[in-house]
Amino acid sequence: MADIKMDYLARCAAVQKAARAEGMDVVIVSASSDMTYLCGYVHKQSDRATLLVIPADGAPFIVAPTLEAMKAATKTGGLFEVIPWQETESAFAKVRASVKGNVASFGVSEQTWAWYLLALQEQFAGAKVNNASPIITGLRVRKSPPEVEYMRLTGRAADVVAEGLRGLQYAGRTEAQVANAVIALGQEAGLEQPSCILASGANSASPHHSQGDRVIAQGEAVWMDFGGYIGNYKSDVTRSVFVGTPPAEYRQVYDVVRRAQETAATTVRTGMACQDLDRIARKIITDAGYGQYFIHRTGHGIGLDGHEHPYMVEGNRQIIEPGMCFSVEPGIYIPGKFGVRVEDCVCMGNDGKAEILNVSSHELFAVK
Amino acid sequence: MADIKMDYLARCAAVQKAARAEGMDVVIVSASSDMTYLCGYVHKQSDRATLLVIPADGAPFIVAPTLEAMKAATKTGGLFEVIPWQETESAFAKVRASVKGNVASFGVSEQTWAWYLLALQEQFAGAKVNNASPIITGLRVRKSPPEVEYMRLTGRAADVVAEGLRGLQYAGRTEAQVANAVIALGQEAGLEQPSCILASGANSASPHHSQGDRVIAQGEAVWMDFGGYIGNYKSDVTRSVFVGTPPAEYRQVYDVVRRAQETAATTVRTGMACQDLDRIARKIITDAGYGQYFIHRTGHGIGLDGHEHPYMVEGNRQIIEPGMCFSVEPGIYIPGKFGVRVEDCVCMGNDGKAEILNVSSHELFAVK
Repeated sequence: MADIKMDYLARCAAVQKAARAEGMDVVIVSASSDMTYLCGYVHKQSDRATLLVIPADGAPFIVAPTLEAMKAATKTGGLFEVIPWQETESAFAKVRASVKGNVASFGVSEQTWAWYLLALQEQFAGAKVNNASPIITGLRVRKSPPEVEYMRLTGRAADVVAEGLRGLQYAGRTEAQVANAVIALGQEAGLEQPSCILASGANSASPHHSQGDRVIAQGEAVWMDFGGYIGNYKSDVTRSVFVGTPPAEYRQVYDVVRRAQETAATTVRTGMACQDLDRIARKIITDAGYGQYFIHRTGHGIGLDGHEHPYMVEGNRQIIEPGMCFSVEPGIYIPGKFGVRVEDCVCMGNDGKAEILNVSSHELFAVK
Repeated sequence: MADIKMDYLARCAAVQKAARAEGMDVVIVSASSDMTYLCGYVHKQSDRATLLVIPADGAPFIVAPTLEAMKAATKTGGLFEVIPWQETESAFAKVRASVKGNVASFGVSEQTWAWYLLALQEQFAGAKVNNASPIITGLRVRKSPPEVEYMRLTGRAADVVAEGLRGLQYAGRTEAQVANAVIALGQEAGLEQPSCILASGANSASPHHSQGDRVIAQGEAVWMDFGGYIGNYKSDVTRSVFVGTPPAEYRQVYDVVRRAQETAATTVRTGMACQDLDRIARKIITDAGYGQYFIHRTGHGIGLDGHEHPYMVEGNRQIIEPGMCFSVEPGIYIPGKFGVRVEDCVCMGNDGKAEILNVSSHELFAVK
């Protein structure tokens, strides 16, 4: 539902201004986090297209299927005209008919389905197609104070989950059972759509492993990567635990990952490039002799999407600015043995430092 | 996880054959139900692209981010070579480098994100772009016996939910509370990712209303549209109930909708066009004087996606064939008053008739 604290019309106006500067006659935004950001409508792409249409000049409007027109109007607080299309009509022809004047160049939000885009290209035959998301992302990367407040709330709820991990039973249960217990902790903590991926034993060397029927045993590494939404804003935390007493090698790896994570999160400053943050974490892991096992970037932006710009990866020279929110999540994954990841999210403050959005402990816990 | 009962390589070979016939040099399938259908990988699109690449000639392969390469190989049962791309590389350049020979024309699955498509167009500069989903859909619309078995299982589980609706408390609870109770019934019934949309009172005249904080009262109409997955196959059922004793107008509308639904589901035959089914249901509602309030198509295909081809809508001359699974869900929505929808799914048999996948009662129930 459209949130009164978010100034949707101002956001659309900013898109219009940027679109004019880039020579786009219209920007078309499909149901995605870009649409939520620009008009407050939380919706998914489907066989029936809903499109937020932002002409370079004139009022933005929504083209929606007739059977969802009432819903689209209500959920966007009456801020936008909703133009319905009937079941026997084309949403894309309706967009074409509703945009005034010649269209020589148009933009689409980047998560728009290919068949929507191909259908729009038929309607705007010969027009240049642009990825409009860099424009929208340019707004989204710097979170406003109300957005940061939601990031704090969702971060705190994820911390409650993190603190609850120590009390769970691991040995003798399947990965899926424990992951479901983590999701239940998320529900209790007030997270919407709580989620968790979990890996145990040798599976934990696969950074995006998703839980299955494997039974967790004593003497095994486990990590849990979890989060959820509050007010449409996402949290994302990873904690690694050990079932029983961790052996020396695990403790050593854990300490390196923890040090890389904490050093990166506390030394990141506005004005740095994103790749600099990756280098800070990577140097610590490489110096400790585990560089070859840190097989992913150090972090990703987070907000309405779980992964969004800016990305903390080598090669990304984007400058870190106040209001940017991102994960800091180095890891070491030793094939056939185990993996360790520690992840918190941060928000860059006006003082140039990171406000760490997750305050749950990084101590290495032996669980049962 | 790749399912041994599904012949993924044969499906890919069928795509290759059709691609050659249409002059496509390669078909690129992003993470979506099309990917699940063709290789068994259940995955979502993200900032890190995973792509199933099916050259017109040669073995299909998967391009996946390094950190998910192990997962992609495991989940597809080792049937496909997995070519990893590092965090500092482009997935799309990796696809280009891995496809042999000249590419003058390529296809993409239709739910591919626009930025993936634009990036692929950069790699295959000047090549013609095609929507490859009609090829894939051409296979998916006719469910194989193992697929039909999953459709029966998920349908039966949704029936268990339907039978549980009568026992719920409605009056005095919010729409969201009752919808959560329906989702809990789905979990108990063994549905994966159970979901429910619910509308009450005047909201029920909005066919895709999603529940909010409105408190349901005595003397109100309620409908619930629910389902979930078993073995990645979706169920989709709608039942309408009345809180207290239904007045004459509601009973009359309910009877018309029920008659339209049951007549359509029992008289549909293979060899008809999809639009013919829509006409059967629509004629009954129109003849009863409610035509203007039946504001959506009669049904949609269902399988790996909740909505997929074929669509039961005026203008669709596609012929109904054995193995096609779809919903039959007429409704009447009177603005400011109430709405009624009755929905079951069916599977067309080799005898030319529909096997009705949902057998829960259509009686009009007065609930408390």
